[in-house]
Amino acid sequence: MTLTESKDFSHLFSEETKARKPSPLKTCIHLFNDPNIVFLGGGLPLSDYFPWDNIHSQSPLPPFKNGIGSKITGLKDDTLEYVVSRDEKVEKADIPFKKSLQYGATQGQPEILEFLREHNKLVHEFNYSDWDSILTTGNTNGWESTLRIFCNKGDVILAEAHSFSSSLASAEAQGVITFPVPIDSDGIIPEKLESILDNWTPGSPKPKLLYTIPTGQNPTGSSLSDERKEAIYKIACKHDFIIIEDEPYYFLQTGPYLKDLEQRKKYEDQQEQQNHEQFLKSLAKTFLSLDTEGRVIRMDSFSKVLAPGARLGWLTGSKKILQYYVSLHEMTVQGASGFSQSIINGLLQRWGQDGYIDWLKGLRSEYVIKRNNAIDYLHEFLPASGPFTINPPIAGMFFTVTIDATAHPDFKTKFNSNPKAVEQHIYETIVKNGVLLVPGCWFITEGETTPPQPADSKQIQNPNEIFFRGTYAAVAAEKLREGLKRFSECLKEEFGF
Amino acid sequence: MTLTESKDFSHLFSEETKARKPSPLKTCIHLFNDPNIVFLGGGLPLSDYFPWDNIHSQSPLPPFKNGIGSKITGLKDDTLEYVVSRDEKVEKADIPFKKSLQYGATQGQPEILEFLREHNKLVHEFNYSDWDSILTTGNTNGWESTLRIFCNKGDVILAEAHSFSSSLASAEAQGVITFPVPIDSDGIIPEKLESILDNWTPGSPKPKLLYTIPTGQNPTGSSLSDERKEAIYKIACKHDFIIIEDEPYYFLQTGPYLKDLEQRKKYEDQQEQQNHEQFLKSLAKTFLSLDTEGRVIRMDSFSKVLAPGARLGWLTGSKKILQYYVSLHEMTVQGASGFSQSIINGLLQRWGQDGYIDWLKGLRSEYVIKRNNAIDYLHEFLPASGPFTINPPIAGMFFTVTIDATAHPDFKTKFNSNPKAVEQHIYETIVKNGVLLVPGCWFITEGETTPPQPADSKQIQNPNEIFFRGTYAAVAAEKLREGLKRFSECLKEEFGF
Repeated sequence: MTLTESKDFSHLFSEETKARKPSPLKTCIHLFNDPNIVFLGGGLPLSDYFPWDNIHSQSPLPPFKNGIGSKITGLKDDTLEYVVSRDEKVEKADIPFKKSLQYGATQGQPEILEFLREHNKLVHEFNYSDWDSILTTGNTNGWESTLRIFCNKGDVILAEAHSFSSSLASAEAQGVITFPVPIDSDGIIPEKLESILDNWTPGSPKPKLLYTIPTGQNPTGSSLSDERKEAIYKIACKHDFIIIEDEPYYFLQTGPYLKDLEQRKKYEDQQEQQNHEQFLKSLAKTFLSLDTEGRVIRMDSFSKVLAPGARLGWLTGSKKILQYYVSLHEMTVQGASGFSQSIINGLLQRWGQDGYIDWLKGLRSEYVIKRNNAIDYLHEFLPASGPFTINPPIAGMFFTVTIDATAHPDFKTKFNSNPKAVEQHIYETIVKNGVLLVPGCWFITEGETTPPQPADSKQIQNPNEIFFRGTYAAVAAEKLREGLKRFSECLKEEFGF
Repeated sequence: MTLTESKDFSHLFSEETKARKPSPLKTCIHLFNDPNIVFLGGGLPLSDYFPWDNIHSQSPLPPFKNGIGSKITGLKDDTLEYVVSRDEKVEKADIPFKKSLQYGATQGQPEILEFLREHNKLVHEFNYSDWDSILTTGNTNGWESTLRIFCNKGDVILAEAHSFSSSLASAEAQGVITFPVPIDSDGIIPEKLESILDNWTPGSPKPKLLYTIPTGQNPTGSSLSDERKEAIYKIACKHDFIIIEDEPYYFLQTGPYLKDLEQRKKYEDQQEQQNHEQFLKSLAKTFLSLDTEGRVIRMDSFSKVLAPGARLGWLTGSKKILQYYVSLHEMTVQGASGFSQSIINGLLQRWGQDGYIDWLKGLRSEYVIKRNNAIDYLHEFLPASGPFTINPPIAGMFFTVTIDATAHPDFKTKFNSNPKAVEQHIYETIVKNGVLLVPGCWFITEGETTPPQPADSKQIQNPNEIFFRGTYAAVAAEKLREGLKRFSECLKEEFGF
């Protein structure tokens, strides 16, 4: 089947994007490699002056037989030694430092982009022809750029009613209004989203974007089902907004928490025995895979699967839109670090697509253990019935515990029937007792809207329900257990259990 | 002498800067390293999962006895081998990858910042107490952030009448008006600058910033004298604007071009024999060194002295201002690449301050040769008298040739007395003949101002004078000679010489 091209969404661009002129210097850059031209146009230092002749790395070797995170021995059966050179390609698809450490290639070096396009094809279905990927310096950069590409001051965007506070703050600092979309334990509720938009105050500017973290959402830990995604995509088409899927946790899809140990063992064995095709098929369908028009922009990142400080991620979407990101990035980040690109590309090219999938699969196993530990400990320390609800995630790094604030003995007296006061009191208490989880109110999406819009999520969620977000990513099992013990003891003490 | 603190310049901040709230997550981050707290707050992956155990580099060894850019042998007398490890500090001031590849430290890792502070103290005098440096991902990022920190849409900034087109375009895309400051062959003319500001239309918003490239200016190649800098700094205090000194070429101070070969040899020998103190003393005084109030922000970069693709630079200025850059960067770039930081820091710590000065001094020698070659070739190929003026720079990567457009035989006829038409015609002709230099009109600073301001530079500079910018940085001597021969032949042909 021949795919058609993506639609034009330039009517949603910001003033800034419309005003950005290409640099005149770019009009001659194609002559740089013309053998008939002596190019005296650009201030590029000679690569002979780059003081790194070659860089040699010791890394784990697929299929990572001792598991992700185990010490490598330096021996051939678990250790990959590779060299990236300044001047030559040691491997065919290497990026020598003379290229990656030079100016140019704001969109990313061709070799690593090609690897990522191939990876994309394994993970997503593409339903229009002119899709592409470009590098970012991570999803923080990808999101900031997205706001600049689409939003003017006063524009409205949609976001999950609880969302990643830095993403919300970034929008709010730019004068962009963040409008909360009602969520439940499975993420955005499509019917509520549709009702908000169907009843949007006439004449009031409609949202340009939906910002969503579909998998292992931060902070709630929820994951959107394929069905909900389909419904949300339809609403996006109907009400003409762009979907930004921010997916740093996508490959940490642990699957359901199974309390029964026998069931659990069986499920984990099945996971373990998946071949690559089965593994990829087990992953949630992406918004990108549903997109027939080019209105989805996906943000992927190496931060959670290789290392955050690599500052390397990629955007995937319609070329018609991505070219404007490249123009913006020429004036902002210029491009991702050449060290990051050469070193990560050097690793990925030697691992190959298969080795990288081995890595992602191995990483999932690690997070299955971590997630199970966290939820097991909570079940161990918290009463089975009462005001506390443990919410086991099926993906990501975060779990939450929701609490009925009205169950606190002092709710009506000391706390004046104010659930937020209970939340703040518990936060202070747990920190005093040596454990830190983050109160849910830190993640509330609450931009002002003028005129006020209907179906505000604050009226839909139970206002007396508070929650705390914890992570099992950052600490070893024993410490996690101790932390959750302290947390649970505090809750029981406070609520009289 | 005890230095006093910098002044408060928050009245010059943008709406966005004033609106930016610190992330609530940052209020608890100090508890991350508290041994009494089990920190389940942040989604940080375990560093055991970062797939690089150690990275080993081969780099040149100070004092670079065979010169910068010569091949290293791998032997002890010219080759530095160093290892940066994921888990340990191999050298005391190393940044292990478990730190640099983790989240955190938006301002930069402490080890490399400390190196840069020490370097700063060698290069500048500081006249107020609370200065500091923070990392950027290069000066493109530093400048973009500067615009976001200070400017609202409609604000005015000052820039050299010809300036780096990408910097101007970045401002213009944000709706910031770039106002041209008259320049001559020595850069900004302080008297003209003062007159513009003294006669600024009352009630019209005054410029918040002066953007300047003081050393080896792009595109003119000019360098500001210490005296002009002093005068400009006084005007900045009088008219309350911030000075942004963008100094990527600062260490490429080649000194004057000497046509006489005997004089040249003597001068170069003197340069060669300079010890580090003499070398540093020979450098131009910086705006930073003149600053008593904290109204200068300096942008330094490794792009021209180590490698552009490292995407690593630093800002130096008042802590009171820099802290707002850090808050902005938390939401934009998050931080420079950890690979770049660990690898460059690893090199610099082993070179030491002295080794780094050796490198910079060696690099200067390279650029002296390159600059001399370019100007020699131009003298060889262009007539000594006539409409062409060769402008030998004393620093940087760029030279210019100015041309009296009225001298073209077809000026009044074919070109309708329009110098820009001559410029475009010459550009097309040289490209057709196999050489590319960039026409001066690509660098014109010309924002609109409402109401129009007096002393517009366009009335001051000779409107019939056009110029071309060339670089001697990017090509080897032979190719440079061939390119400049082609360029000169075209000019002579066109102007009938």
